[in-house]
Amino acid sequence: MGTGPGNEFHMSGRAREVLGFVDIVVGYKTYLEIIEPVIQGKKTLATGMTKEVDRVEAAIDAALNGQSCALVSGGDPGVYAMAGLVLEILATRKIACNSCDAGAEGGLSVEVVPGIPALCAGAALLGAPLTHDFAAISLSDLLTPWDLIEKRIAAAASADFVIAIYNPKSKKRDWQLNRAREIILEHRGGTTPVGVVTGAMRENQRIQLSSLQDLDKADVGMQSIVFIGNSSTFIYGDLMITPRGYSKKYDI
Amino acid sequence: MGTGPGNEFHMSGRAREVLGFVDIVVGYKTYLEIIEPVIQGKKTLATGMTKEVDRVEAAIDAALNGQSCALVSGGDPGVYAMAGLVLEILATRKIACNSCDAGAEGGLSVEVVPGIPALCAGAALLGAPLTHDFAAISLSDLLTPWDLIEKRIAAAASADFVIAIYNPKSKKRDWQLNRAREIILEHRGGTTPVGVVTGAMRENQRIQLSSLQDLDKADVGMQSIVFIGNSSTFIYGDLMITPRGYSKKYDI
Repeated sequence: MGTGPGNEFHMSGRAREVLGFVDIVVGYKTYLEIIEPVIQGKKTLATGMTKEVDRVEAAIDAALNGQSCALVSGGDPGVYAMAGLVLEILATRKIACNSCDAGAEGGLSVEVVPGIPALCAGAALLGAPLTHDFAAISLSDLLTPWDLIEKRIAAAASADFVIAIYNPKSKKRDWQLNRAREIILEHRGGTTPVGVVTGAMRENQRIQLSSLQDLDKADVGMQSIVFIGNSSTFIYGDLMITPRGYSKKYDI
Repeated sequence: MGTGPGNEFHMSGRAREVLGFVDIVVGYKTYLEIIEPVIQGKKTLATGMTKEVDRVEAAIDAALNGQSCALVSGGDPGVYAMAGLVLEILATRKIACNSCDAGAEGGLSVEVVPGIPALCAGAALLGAPLTHDFAAISLSDLLTPWDLIEKRIAAAASADFVIAIYNPKSKKRDWQLNRAREIILEHRGGTTPVGVVTGAMRENQRIQLSSLQDLDKADVGMQSIVFIGNSSTFIYGDLMITPRGYSKKYDI
């Protein structure tokens, strides 16, 4: 399940309800601290940041032992998050499971509870940079070959998608964002608006407006999402706007 | 602002708070009915389905008259929704405005309140079809030239993006989805898993699992989103799963 961006303030009613009735809440330590007001008194199981597989195994073990279990992550669990890993492990181990709608005779019943993804939180803080067709690309080559990531960046840039870049930079991965910028510059002008949102709706939130040519000067970190505008995107006031195309058809 | 998928149950705490303090709520008639329990007693202004520009103008007029005004839409306002149009009209008319963070001396102060997009709601109901890099493409050629839409479909298909298709079909637009299917089949096998979610988290919700070769037989309508898997996507039980790639690196 996803708890949305930042603190519990952007959590959905359904997420809050699920946290209320489950026997145990499993998650990354920092996330559990953020949503502490909502899970007070609950049995919790916290693991470290890179321990995704451990976290999922703990949740599955609890469920197989008959406990209802919520595995929480920030944002939406289906966008670069844990829902896929949970289901991948269930499938690999041939543990019988089904969606809640289908029921789960003799197996686990799984509900993926959506949350507001960082993508939408960041876009909202910038104004409306997505609005039109967009591509989400992670620059982390930990689990994906870099060649394929480059191919996706080039494809998205060539077809004028707005591009939302996840995992743009970390201490160890410091050159990928600039390479992505070079590839996009082959298809899009240097003045193309770029927005960088770091720590969306958290205390350390920071919003930067830049351009493709100046992106290498922006402050980008592990908690940043970088939004590259399409050929129609523009800045007005402090807002980044990708028009849908109404002005071509209607008198606005 | 976005109220999330379906009824008010998936709305965020912030959305609920905003609806509580604004002077007037503007929206498409059906949406206002869906969230009626949350806006009881509020002054509302409802317009018809295709009256997007009228709706935005009504909201801006109210704001210029000193009233705080919430323009609501289902899902997230930044994904094929109204946030872009609001800002586009403000910019076109040179109405001074800024994000809430910046304040708005002598102009309007705009907050985009994110919601869970239909994309994430649909994905959650299917399991975890997104998880990896994905592209969102609308097949509506009302505001976008069809040539550009075809180019985007081909680009996304060629670079193995998961593809989420918005506006796949309507009474008047009945051939576009099959053309999209043909283009994707040039790059991806016929057995590629496809999920169709219609009316996500509404009373008429329907979930269909299919494949690229059989997509032409699926029941797809105005309220559907079609999810095309990438080359790694698979079905397990009734769940559609795009693995992130952990199994290549870890022993799961």
